[in-house]
Amino acid sequence: MSTAWTSRYAQRTKNIKSSAIRELLKFTQNPEIISFAGGLPAPDVFPTERFREACCKVLDTQAAQALQYGASEGYEPLREMIARHTARYGVKAKPENVLITSGSQQALDLIGKLMINSGDRVLVEAPTYLGALQAFNVYSAEYVSVPSDNDGMQTKHLEASLRLGPKFMYVLPNFQNPGGTTMADDRRHELVMLADRYGVPIIEDDPYGQLRYEGEHLAPLIMLDRENLRRDSGYSIGNVIYLSTFSKTLAPGLRLGWIVAPPDVIAKLVQLKQGADLHTSTFVQMVAYEVARDNFLDQHIKVIRRVYRERRDVMLEALEKEFPSEVTWTRPQGGLFLWVSLPEGMDCHQLFETALRENVAFVPGDSFYAPGGHAEEGRRHFRLNFSNAQPEMIREGIRRLGVAIRNQWRKLHPGWDRPVDQHVFD
Amino acid sequence: MSTAWTSRYAQRTKNIKSSAIRELLKFTQNPEIISFAGGLPAPDVFPTERFREACCKVLDTQAAQALQYGASEGYEPLREMIARHTARYGVKAKPENVLITSGSQQALDLIGKLMINSGDRVLVEAPTYLGALQAFNVYSAEYVSVPSDNDGMQTKHLEASLRLGPKFMYVLPNFQNPGGTTMADDRRHELVMLADRYGVPIIEDDPYGQLRYEGEHLAPLIMLDRENLRRDSGYSIGNVIYLSTFSKTLAPGLRLGWIVAPPDVIAKLVQLKQGADLHTSTFVQMVAYEVARDNFLDQHIKVIRRVYRERRDVMLEALEKEFPSEVTWTRPQGGLFLWVSLPEGMDCHQLFETALRENVAFVPGDSFYAPGGHAEEGRRHFRLNFSNAQPEMIREGIRRLGVAIRNQWRKLHPGWDRPVDQHVFD
Repeated sequence: MSTAWTSRYAQRTKNIKSSAIRELLKFTQNPEIISFAGGLPAPDVFPTERFREACCKVLDTQAAQALQYGASEGYEPLREMIARHTARYGVKAKPENVLITSGSQQALDLIGKLMINSGDRVLVEAPTYLGALQAFNVYSAEYVSVPSDNDGMQTKHLEASLRLGPKFMYVLPNFQNPGGTTMADDRRHELVMLADRYGVPIIEDDPYGQLRYEGEHLAPLIMLDRENLRRDSGYSIGNVIYLSTFSKTLAPGLRLGWIVAPPDVIAKLVQLKQGADLHTSTFVQMVAYEVARDNFLDQHIKVIRRVYRERRDVMLEALEKEFPSEVTWTRPQGGLFLWVSLPEGMDCHQLFETALRENVAFVPGDSFYAPGGHAEEGRRHFRLNFSNAQPEMIREGIRRLGVAIRNQWRKLHPGWDRPVDQHVFD
Repeated sequence: MSTAWTSRYAQRTKNIKSSAIRELLKFTQNPEIISFAGGLPAPDVFPTERFREACCKVLDTQAAQALQYGASEGYEPLREMIARHTARYGVKAKPENVLITSGSQQALDLIGKLMINSGDRVLVEAPTYLGALQAFNVYSAEYVSVPSDNDGMQTKHLEASLRLGPKFMYVLPNFQNPGGTTMADDRRHELVMLADRYGVPIIEDDPYGQLRYEGEHLAPLIMLDRENLRRDSGYSIGNVIYLSTFSKTLAPGLRLGWIVAPPDVIAKLVQLKQGADLHTSTFVQMVAYEVARDNFLDQHIKVIRRVYRERRDVMLEALEKEFPSEVTWTRPQGGLFLWVSLPEGMDCHQLFETALRENVAFVPGDSFYAPGGHAEEGRRHFRLNFSNAQPEMIREGIRRLGVAIRNQWRKLHPGWDRPVDQHVFD
C-alpha cells in the first residue's frame, strides 16, 4: 500500500535495522521476566519531589520563557553550569564550548552528520556502545575495531588501526558499555598521544564517569589532551570532543545530554541541530537546571553511587554462587553493566532463548560489535545491567540465569555436572 | 586550533549555513525592538496553570515511568489521542500510524534522512518554510520550486515540475509559512490527483491547521488522497504523509510534534529516530497528554483563535493606515503570518536595515526560497508575524515600519510623498 514510499527510500536506509536491544526488550515487557537487558537507571533513586518543586518554580516564575522557543545552543544557565562542572576536570570550558543535546544519542547523531562521508572509517572499541553504531550507520560509516581487555582498549593494537586512516576514534574510557571495563591511565596517555601523532581526533563518551564505586578517578582524555598539546589560547580543548548526559545522574526520561568541543565545532553543530530539532525542550532544560542547582546533583550522585554499588556487589556475589566456574565476568569499578564470557562452544543466542523460558533476560554480546569487528567472538558474551533491579530480584534473576546456563551447558556436555559417584553407579 | 576537526567535516556540511532568521533574531533580543520576525506564539495564551497541574499529577502518580526511558514510537496514550484527533478529518488513523517527534523540525529531518539521496529533487512551493529547506539541505537535496499566489501553489505549473522527477513534494496547504495563504479546494484535489498519476508522494505540513479565524475548514490532502485512492485495507493513508505539532496550540518549548504515515513507513522512521535521539522526552509527552486531555486542548484552541484573530485584524488595519498604497500584503484566514510585497525597485534587505534603526524587525523574503527558486523575487517581499506582539505593540511596530518604508521609498523616488501644492511652491 505504501509502495510509493518504500521504493523511494534513500540509499542510507539500507544500513539501518532495528536495534537488537529494542527488539529483545519487547520480550521483557512481560512482568514475570527479570530483565538485566536494558541500561535503565533505578526508578527508586529518581529525585521525584525535587522535580516537582522545580516544575512548579519554573512555571510560577518563568513560564513565558520555559514554554517558548529557545536558543539552539541551549539554556544559558545550564550551559554555564556544565562548563563549571567540566572545569573541575581541569578543562577550561566556557559556555561557548557547550551544546545541549536531546540526550547523548543526539550528540552521536550530530557528530555522525558533521564528520562521516559514506564509506569513512570510524575507529571503535570491540565491543562498543550499540547506540553509537546505530547513529553512525545512518551515515554509511565503515569501522575499524580495536580489541579490549580488562584495562579497556588495547592500545598496543592502535597504531596499526590508525594507519588505516579513520576519520575519528570513538571511545568510552569509564565503565564501558557493554564491557564495564575502565581504560587504564597509561593507555589513556598513549591513546591521546597517538591521536595527536596521527592527527585523528577523539570522541570521548562519558555517560557514567561520575558513577564510580571504588578506586581513584582517572583523568578524562579531554584533560590529557590539554596537557599533551600545551595550547595557550583561550580554550583548552583541542583534539578531543567530550560527551555526557543527565540520563544516568538525574533521569533518562528528560532526554538531556551535552557536547563539550572547540567553539567553531560547536558553531557548526548548532547549525546541524537547528535542522535536526531546532532546540532541546526549553522547559526540560530549565527544570533540570533547577533540580541540579545548589549542589543538589552532587549530593544526589552520592545516593546513586551507594545504591548501585550495593547492586553491583549483590550481582557479583550471586554470579559467584550461581554460575559454573567455566563462565567468567568483568568486575566493574562503576557504571551500570558487567560483561559475561561463556566457555568455548556456548552461544549467547541459544542461551537467550533458554533464559527467556526461565523468565530472565540479557543482551546478547554480538550486538555490540561493529560490522567486521569480530561479532562471532561476541556470541560468546552477553551484557548484564545491575542498576535497575532491586537486590532480591538480582539474586533471583542470576539464580534463574545460572539454571539456564547449566541447562545449556548440559546439552553440550552430557553428564558434565553429575557428581562423580552418581556417574559411576547409576 | 580545531583544524583537526574542521578539515575533517563531511561533504554535507558545505550545504549548511546558519539560518538567516536565527542570525537576524539576535538583533531582536534588544528589548526596544518590536519584532515581527519570529514565528513565536503569544506567551499570554500559554496554559501555565494547566501545565502546573499536569506536572504535579504526572510526578505524583507516574514518576517512575515519566522519568525513565520510553518507546521510540512515543507515549501510547498520546499516540492514541493523536490518532483519534486525526480521525476527525475522516482519516482512519490508528496509533501505529503515529510517530511522536521532537517538534515538527525533527519530523522534517527524519523524512529527509528516510528519502533524500544526495542530488535528489524535492518539489516545494515558492516561497516555502525555511526550516524544511534547512532540514533537507543536510541531505544535499536539489529543489524544484512551483510558484504560489493567493490560492496557494499554482497547480497549473505542477505537471511540468513533476516531469522533472522529484522524490517527493513538500507543501503547507493551510495558512502557509511564510505566505499566510491557503491552498484552494480545487487545487488540493488537483495536487493529490497529479501526485497519484506521477507516483510522487506528498509531505503535508500542517502546523497551523486548527488556527482558522474565518472561512470554512478545507479537507487536508491526506483525506483527499484517501478518497482518490479508494483503498480498502485497514489504513486509509497512502500517498500522503501528514505532519503536525503542539507548538502552536500548546507550547513550542515542549518540542512535541508528530507524523501520520502508513505503518511500514512509521516502522522505518522509528528505526531512524532510535539513532537520532532514542525517543522524545517521556516526561514532556506525559505532561502534554495530561494538559490536552478531557477536551482541554479544543477549548484552549478557541482562546488562541480569538486572541490571534484580533491581532491579525489589528495588523491588517494598521497596514492599511501606515503603509503607502504601493505596498501590498496577503490577508490570511488563519495561522501566524502575513506576507508583504514591496513595489518594484525596493529591496527587503535595505529595508531591514532601515527598519532596525526604527526599532522594528521582520524576516526578509528571500530566506524562504529554495536554491534556484527565484530568490531574487524574494527580495521584494518580507514576512510579518502577528501572533506574538500585543495589539498596541503591533500598531506601534507597523507605524515604525511604515516610516522605514517611506524613508526607503523616498530615497528611490525623491519627492514622492510630498503634497502637490507643497511641491509647487517650496
